[in-house]
Amino acid sequence: MAVKLAIPEKIHAVQGVQVGTACAGIKQTERDDVALIFFDEGTIVAGVYTQSHFAAAPVLVAKESESTSSGWIINSGNANAATGYRGEVDARKTCRIVGDRLSRPESSIQPFSTGVIGEFLPMDKVESAIDEAVASLDPGSWESAARAIMTTDTQPKIVSSQFYLDDQLITLTGIAKGSGMIRPDMATMLAFMASDIAIDRTLLKDLIKEISEMSFNRITVDGDTSTNDCFMLACTGTAEMSPIIDKSDSRYAEILKILGDGAKALAQSIVRDGEGATKFVGVIVEGGANEQECLSVAYSIAESPLIKTALFAGDPNWGRFCMAIGKAPIEHVDTSLIELWLDDVLVASGGMLSDSYNEIDGARVLDKEEFSVRIVLGRGSFSTEIWTTDLSYDYVKINAEYRT
Amino acid sequence: MAVKLAIPEKIHAVQGVQVGTACAGIKQTERDDVALIFFDEGTIVAGVYTQSHFAAAPVLVAKESESTSSGWIINSGNANAATGYRGEVDARKTCRIVGDRLSRPESSIQPFSTGVIGEFLPMDKVESAIDEAVASLDPGSWESAARAIMTTDTQPKIVSSQFYLDDQLITLTGIAKGSGMIRPDMATMLAFMASDIAIDRTLLKDLIKEISEMSFNRITVDGDTSTNDCFMLACTGTAEMSPIIDKSDSRYAEILKILGDGAKALAQSIVRDGEGATKFVGVIVEGGANEQECLSVAYSIAESPLIKTALFAGDPNWGRFCMAIGKAPIEHVDTSLIELWLDDVLVASGGMLSDSYNEIDGARVLDKEEFSVRIVLGRGSFSTEIWTTDLSYDYVKINAEYRT
Repeated sequence: MAVKLAIPEKIHAVQGVQVGTACAGIKQTERDDVALIFFDEGTIVAGVYTQSHFAAAPVLVAKESESTSSGWIINSGNANAATGYRGEVDARKTCRIVGDRLSRPESSIQPFSTGVIGEFLPMDKVESAIDEAVASLDPGSWESAARAIMTTDTQPKIVSSQFYLDDQLITLTGIAKGSGMIRPDMATMLAFMASDIAIDRTLLKDLIKEISEMSFNRITVDGDTSTNDCFMLACTGTAEMSPIIDKSDSRYAEILKILGDGAKALAQSIVRDGEGATKFVGVIVEGGANEQECLSVAYSIAESPLIKTALFAGDPNWGRFCMAIGKAPIEHVDTSLIELWLDDVLVASGGMLSDSYNEIDGARVLDKEEFSVRIVLGRGSFSTEIWTTDLSYDYVKINAEYRT
Repeated sequence: MAVKLAIPEKIHAVQGVQVGTACAGIKQTERDDVALIFFDEGTIVAGVYTQSHFAAAPVLVAKESESTSSGWIINSGNANAATGYRGEVDARKTCRIVGDRLSRPESSIQPFSTGVIGEFLPMDKVESAIDEAVASLDPGSWESAARAIMTTDTQPKIVSSQFYLDDQLITLTGIAKGSGMIRPDMATMLAFMASDIAIDRTLLKDLIKEISEMSFNRITVDGDTSTNDCFMLACTGTAEMSPIIDKSDSRYAEILKILGDGAKALAQSIVRDGEGATKFVGVIVEGGANEQECLSVAYSIAESPLIKTALFAGDPNWGRFCMAIGKAPIEHVDTSLIELWLDDVLVASGGMLSDSYNEIDGARVLDKEEFSVRIVLGRGSFSTEIWTTDLSYDYVKINAEYRT
């Protein structure tokens, strides 16, 4: 089902990072469902976490332990969300077991869970899987981890690249899971990236916020937000380089670009494997008075069920775009300034269908697996791009039949 | 397809109102597609109109003529939206033709259109249909009008009631169309109500705002907002009563209740005939600190594709409700105070599944065609209710295949 999604040919180990996996048999017994990512001392970690009021127990514990983190323990099949006090006890116990096996304090382990909401973790199964995962720790197991954290993902999601920063070769490898922005009973999106970059801890927090604004905060499958979403970045500092300690260092812009591109590729891989996805669509909004209004228009388009069904049908139904722009929460819109483009085809301008437009040209664009919808607002110089997918019969099928 | 939707046994004429219909053959030739509703002198009119930036030409003209209105001309099959200057000229010409035939000024006629966006009105067809509609004016043709304004509605939508205000028998009759909150290329919801009540013009504007807040502003099918939405109310003043001139008059509360109930029934009829609807669901949010946060939670639930697909499947997937409450844009939520009910079945409390809950009980509720989802927030004394429907294969089918 996934739209143009492939595993990188070469997955680079990151110096200072070991990865182990195991099968706890939480929801199924055919494949691994526990992953452990363990860092050498000196590694620093930052994360961005779901804003949901119903943030799951592991998310609360993971946030607490961010500044002391030396490892991530992740399970799929059970989200440990909406599980009350016992859920929190289970999350802490998981960390204690991992820390114990690795001779680290409980507070050095961050827990993450994804799967069914409202059920307790089977702690006996988790405990024996942890032993197995610890025993399997190895720098080269990123792909196994990417597979272990999958729920109904149809493919693992991995990025890996190497690049030079000044003269030093730097490595970045990351994995993600998620098949909708939210799959609340398979809750939901997780992403883990590691690099050997040396960077100041405070600056790393700024960096991950900037990265998420250009990647995971720019995708939507269904407009829903999960109880378990987390995006984590670990920097081991093992590369031969002086640490980057402030934004005026020209290397900051370089790593923002490179790590941002990696995160963007991971985020896009979630959309490409979106529930029932048959199309991968960039929604570009240009000419806004500020970025926020560009985003408002972009999400109004990307989350409209009527647009998404038209994308599925390959129907260049431009009236639906007018509707979605029309309902966006921005003020004083002059529709006579607006242009609508499908890739390089000008569909509408001046508030009306363009004279040059021919519906066959529009249909030709929407027949493709991947294309862009571009709106020009004519109000200013800001722009943004987000990525989304269509709404197909399979989206309904997957979500209507998941538990039955 | 519609969920428990029927035409009233008796449709009452409203004194001072005549209704005519005709077939202009705009999109099809098998049934009427033009309706004319014409008022005796002394009638006053108020309306609420779409907030869309792409508000259609007839909406702009109808707003201008509200205070001088003595009639409504409505066509289906073409929305006259995103049609630029020519669209406005056509809307005004339509009013001029109707006014001419009825010996009234152009500014006394309000135009309304619903149907495909971005095409020009076939004015020659419209003009001859107007002659036919004028010739057929009759107090008893409300059902014909309800049918003439349908687009892909599967059933006409009508309310009609009589009640006593003090000792005077009052009549209320209204019609609506719409099968999604928005069908942008069949743009979209229109509602027309008339009563013989005598009321002050300024007070009528307050009344229609209050009525729409308890009816048309409390429904959602897909969260989209149309370019052509209008809700109109005409009061002929022909009943034997002194006019109601301010809110302190006890009759104001009475008519607010009765007209509000009529509008609510019409609004609900749009949801019952929603695109692909198999369920009619009330979403009740109680215990909010204010009404706005109740509405935020209610819409977060009613517009979540994951909840809507679970409703379609009859799957009491309570994790999805946690997700939707969790993402609602309100602050400082204590999930341990929240309760979730499906009709009279307590599903969750204290942030967890309730001890008393049995999934068979939940599934029994969701198997019904009509039920309520009730959230108790435990933060205050405000509450609200909105109405929505599920997301079925047919929703995708209708919207993916409509133009092809």
